[in-house]
Amino acid sequence: MSTTIPSGFSEPATVRLTTRARLIEPFHAIAIFREAMTSVDAGRRILMCVGEPDFDTPARVVAAATAALARGETHYTIPAGIPELRSAISRHYRERYDAEVPPERVLVTAGASAALTLAFGALAEPGDEFLMADPGYPSNRAFLTFCGARAGLVPVGAPERFQLTPDLVERHWTPATRGVMVASPANPTGTSMADEDLRAIHEVVRARGGTLIVDEIYHGLTYGHRPATAAALGGDVFVVNSFSKYYCMTGWRLGWLVMPEPYAPALERMAQHLYIAAAAPSQWAGVAAMEPESVAIHEARRVEFEARRDWIVPALRAIGLPAAYEPDGAFYVYVDCTAHAGDSWEFARELLHETGVAVTPGRDFGVHRAGEFLRVSYTSSLPRLQEAVARIGAYLDGRRR
Amino acid sequence: MSTTIPSGFSEPATVRLTTRARLIEPFHAIAIFREAMTSVDAGRRILMCVGEPDFDTPARVVAAATAALARGETHYTIPAGIPELRSAISRHYRERYDAEVPPERVLVTAGASAALTLAFGALAEPGDEFLMADPGYPSNRAFLTFCGARAGLVPVGAPERFQLTPDLVERHWTPATRGVMVASPANPTGTSMADEDLRAIHEVVRARGGTLIVDEIYHGLTYGHRPATAAALGGDVFVVNSFSKYYCMTGWRLGWLVMPEPYAPALERMAQHLYIAAAAPSQWAGVAAMEPESVAIHEARRVEFEARRDWIVPALRAIGLPAAYEPDGAFYVYVDCTAHAGDSWEFARELLHETGVAVTPGRDFGVHRAGEFLRVSYTSSLPRLQEAVARIGAYLDGRRR
Repeated sequence: MSTTIPSGFSEPATVRLTTRARLIEPFHAIAIFREAMTSVDAGRRILMCVGEPDFDTPARVVAAATAALARGETHYTIPAGIPELRSAISRHYRERYDAEVPPERVLVTAGASAALTLAFGALAEPGDEFLMADPGYPSNRAFLTFCGARAGLVPVGAPERFQLTPDLVERHWTPATRGVMVASPANPTGTSMADEDLRAIHEVVRARGGTLIVDEIYHGLTYGHRPATAAALGGDVFVVNSFSKYYCMTGWRLGWLVMPEPYAPALERMAQHLYIAAAAPSQWAGVAAMEPESVAIHEARRVEFEARRDWIVPALRAIGLPAAYEPDGAFYVYVDCTAHAGDSWEFARELLHETGVAVTPGRDFGVHRAGEFLRVSYTSSLPRLQEAVARIGAYLDGRRR
Repeated sequence: MSTTIPSGFSEPATVRLTTRARLIEPFHAIAIFREAMTSVDAGRRILMCVGEPDFDTPARVVAAATAALARGETHYTIPAGIPELRSAISRHYRERYDAEVPPERVLVTAGASAALTLAFGALAEPGDEFLMADPGYPSNRAFLTFCGARAGLVPVGAPERFQLTPDLVERHWTPATRGVMVASPANPTGTSMADEDLRAIHEVVRARGGTLIVDEIYHGLTYGHRPATAAALGGDVFVVNSFSKYYCMTGWRLGWLVMPEPYAPALERMAQHLYIAAAAPSQWAGVAAMEPESVAIHEARRVEFEARRDWIVPALRAIGLPAAYEPDGAFYVYVDCTAHAGDSWEFARELLHETGVAVTPGRDFGVHRAGEFLRVSYTSSLPRLQEAVARIGAYLDGRRR
């Protein structure tokens, strides 16, 4: 069963709008979010549709930004980012992964969004295709659409832990394929790709003359394992990362791109024009976020996310919303709702109105069996998650009678 | 005489780079800036190549950001911007211009760069052309190149005050022309377009079924006149503005786009994916920057810029670097250096090495007579500007002997 992307966002033909602008879909989750914010009592509302940590940025990171502002760091920085942050990121690769990424290969960006726009902008000609897993993060399709290129969506499921495999990449490669994008851990499933699979995919891509982009924005948030970075696979891999998730800095809009050296000049040229630079206070906050004292805070939060995962995955299974796999990263679980509903979009709205709990329907993440799945974010405290699951469980019980 | 854009930034053909990435030029001014920073003694260095106010962000604006951070505003905001800022911008149009721009038409963006990327992204199909003045802000060409479209560069000079005219627009319109972009006051010349010319251009564009984009990022910085906003011309104009210049907030990366209502849904969809949102602390700072107490500070700075202009334009003329027009806005003057040099790029480097003063060669702003002009930024204190002009004057004197 598959669900067609709805066309309700299309403008009337009388508006002279580019094809790219017509084709880019909304985040459907935002509709659910807005509906929750306007039609559900605040006291009753539980948001499990949100893609950001519930934790504020640690106080010591905020203090670093405040100090930078106080000393007048309110001006443009150089486009590639302040040297202090590029060095901190380079050190991060050495210390966490034993990988050598010189500061010159680090482009500091206004969030991973900017890093991905630049990477696809440098790689994807109109008509080109990048293979990626369906389900996956919706904006990856949008960046390609903006460039006149397209996502080659590869249907994946629980047997592959919702990740591409070397075999799938080989089978789906076409003459239009320019490269492959992998996200590990992935949104919406919270699954990581095994290091050896990533290495094998890199070899397949390289053998075909393509380019591999790896999204590691959930990399700090892994449970029971510690993946290698794709930056260690070779100097030809584009690696995207962000301060939003592990570092709890969504609102600062700060991320980075590890650039293959031959692409660095062009990426920096594009970045100068498209962004000028990332926000200066955010960059100084980023430096502090990578200090050991901050990492200790991030790690404590990672442990908290792990405890939530340990609780919520079986709890959802127990009320008939199973994940047919064990998520091992990020803060998402992608559950099968076919026992209760024919369409996850309608079911998400039903749950919102009947229980006050907002979850994200599969529609946001692609077309492959999107109507069968819901993404649940465990970005609320354990007691709130327990209440949400209890409410949904009670509602589904009553509904069955 | 015209100067060809140098091709030194082209990568070897062995790098699989998109056409857009190959075609986007560097900011040449950054080369001059870097050279100044590395090869000129700090004590001797005077930068008149910089496109940002020398003033820090006002303390009360910084305090607002600090307060927002302290209360936990470290998370994503909604993509179009916090309601407080959209309302403040709407109020700004009512109070300053007597123009009605409802908050729903205001898209808060990560700087004017994002606003322009989105506007061109919504309007410019591959192969389309937007007419704009040459010389002009280099990134406008880059946004179009990113979209596979192109700038239709219209040569302008002192007789037109370096601005398009209704007649020029009519004469340069081609079947590929999708619209017109105007910047007023303009970079690199500091000239404004008369309200009646802007109105007439709008009518020409509308009559031809095109779209007008107006860059008003230097709008607060005008001297001896107070232009109307293009937003008052009609609901079909895209107006771009920024907190960088008048509000002295370059490093915060905050701007906005006034959206024609039929385009708003598509622009918001694209913004969600490409940027998610502008940085949260920056948005709260922006709210404070529009408060009357802050505007009083901005106005005092405007007066200071005006005094600098009043001094520097005749002073440059006196040393043989004349502007054949009176700049009336921004913080730039575009001077003719043909009395001293055959090529402004070489002359800019000569001045840097001989006098320690960094100015921007015309090459950054287009091809039309680019080798004949230098852009001088009066973004240093009056004593520093006086020293810079004295040094250049003495050097040119000695050189003539």
